Amino acid sequence: MVLTVLCGGVGAARLVTGLSQVVEESALCCVINVGDDLVVHGLHVSPDIDTVTYTLAGLHNEATGWGVTDESWRVMDELAEIGGPVWFRLGDRDLATHLYRTGRLRGGTSLADVTGELARARGVRATILPATNDVLATMLTTKSGERLSFQEYFVARRHDVEVSKVEFLGAADSRPAPGVLEAIRDAEQVIVAPSNPLVSIDPILAVPGIAHAVASRRDDVIGISPIVAGSAIKGPADRLLRELGHEASALGVARLYEGLVGTFVIDERDESHKGAIEGLGMQCIVTDTMMTDRGRAGALAKVIHDA
Amino acid sequence: MVLTVLCGGVGAARLVTGLSQVVEESALCCVINVGDDLVVHGLHVSPDIDTVTYTLAGLHNEATGWGVTDESWRVMDELAEIGGPVWFRLGDRDLATHLYRTGRLRGGTSLADVTGELARARGVRATILPATNDVLATMLTTKSGERLSFQEYFVARRHDVEVSKVEFLGAADSRPAPGVLEAIRDAEQVIVAPSNPLVSIDPILAVPGIAHAVASRRDDVIGISPIVAGSAIKGPADRLLRELGHEASALGVARLYEGLVGTFVIDERDESHKGAIEGLGMQCIVTDTMMTDRGRAGALAKVIHDA
Repeated sequence: MVLTVLCGGVGAARLVTGLSQVVEESALCCVINVGDDLVVHGLHVSPDIDTVTYTLAGLHNEATGWGVTDESWRVMDELAEIGGPVWFRLGDRDLATHLYRTGRLRGGTSLADVTGELARARGVRATILPATNDVLATMLTTKSGERLSFQEYFVARRHDVEVSKVEFLGAADSRPAPGVLEAIRDAEQVIVAPSNPLVSIDPILAVPGIAHAVASRRDDVIGISPIVAGSAIKGPADRLLRELGHEASALGVARLYEGLVGTFVIDERDESHKGAIEGLGMQCIVTDTMMTDRGRAGALAKVIHDA
Repeated sequence: MVLTVLCGGVGAARLVTGLSQVVEESALCCVINVGDDLVVHGLHVSPDIDTVTYTLAGLHNEATGWGVTDESWRVMDELAEIGGPVWFRLGDRDLATHLYRTGRLRGGTSLADVTGELARARGVRATILPATNDVLATMLTTKSGERLSFQEYFVARRHDVEVSKVEFLGAADSRPAPGVLEAIRDAEQVIVAPSNPLVSIDPILAVPGIAHAVASRRDDVIGISPIVAGSAIKGPADRLLRELGHEASALGVARLYEGLVGTFVIDERDESHKGAIEGLGMQCIVTDTMMTDRGRAGALAKVIHDA
């Protein structure tokens, strides 16, 4: 039996390392958002896939919050020297991943297959799947009418602009990567990681067939709130929720998952939301959701797995 | 008045540094072979353009014969670690060039414009032009019928296969990069560098219009033999000449340039060829052509410029 986890980046990666303490790592299947993917310098970068893979491999750079440990910056320093664009910083070790991926994609290998190759090369035993092999790009429109790719919004603008709309370009024509629907159908539990619901989980659910597959498993679907006491643990989820007309709270997130999630896990600090969440027809588990270290991630994973 | 130099890689780069001692560097225009260009890991690499640029910038790595000085190999080491292809080794500093070029090309900038930007970024004052902005790929067919790109032949096979045919894919549909025909037309002298005639100079001449422009300036065109005493200074020129039915000698090269070159410069060791070369209707200058250091490159350049 497997646990299938719908994943964004850092929050999901932490949860997955927790789950790997509760079940065999090989029993985990991560279905990962690709809406943040970008092509920079001609290289295909998949930030969420890499964050989950590096974290499971024990290579995640805790200092930067992205990329690889023991990193160096020779290429970026030289690129800055010659006046190239360095707003999206890629370390030397990390670049090897993007060179590998890009070369294989250009040779006709699918993103799912390359992702599997890279995970195995890093010693990861979990199954790592992109939500789709097709191009699906998260685009944000700002209040002033600008249209930004996710990384322009997140990195170049440091998510410091007001957003009026989120779209997933290409989603309507995309298909789930091979194995994704089966992993959702056959899993013991389907877990919605504590990732940004609007720009990490929604672009997974936007791939035709995935939301339906999740809804079909509703009783076995467990979501974890990425909002604790009204704030995102990391990133702009709270702000985005408000800007797009939602409540920036555990309850606000639960509402977004109505019909998909049978059980919702919220932090102790949000216990007051329990009743309202149960009113949505979900079970609600209140626990410590702060995965500030490996042990706490394992403890949260145990609560989830025992649910 | 400018000197326009038709260039391959290392031999041409040495000559150009010599010429920069004889005239202002800004009076030099290098028209460079792109038949060796390749896309590797999705990155556009232009080996001859980079060799000339790095050499003029004083950055050429004399130890490897390609790439940049003070180089490190963090990316390639990591790529090897994850099982990626490392047959075409790109150093960390060198990679910055390819990232810059690839990003700009994907953004719609022409190869000529990117090449100019990179040259200026490196402090090069000479004009560096690709022969064409279009795709022109040198392909070699081996005696056993295999078809290899130039870098597969040169790097992966270490030019240790017998060649039966050389072709320049895309040449018929290519156009000279903007400024190339003017640089040939208006130059004080047009210099054919001591590069491989079959795989460095021929792919330049294969761009429609360039050979005609050079022939129109024949009296002011000076070639330098890359073959000295029957051997190539560097690379497989001697072997390729023989395999493709030519004489591997200064005279053999002179025959290939008949109708294009008014003056041919050969090494003192090949003085016996002088009469036969003059018999082709060329002037023949005999001098020391071995550019083993900057001073000797300058001395050869002076002989050329005074011709």
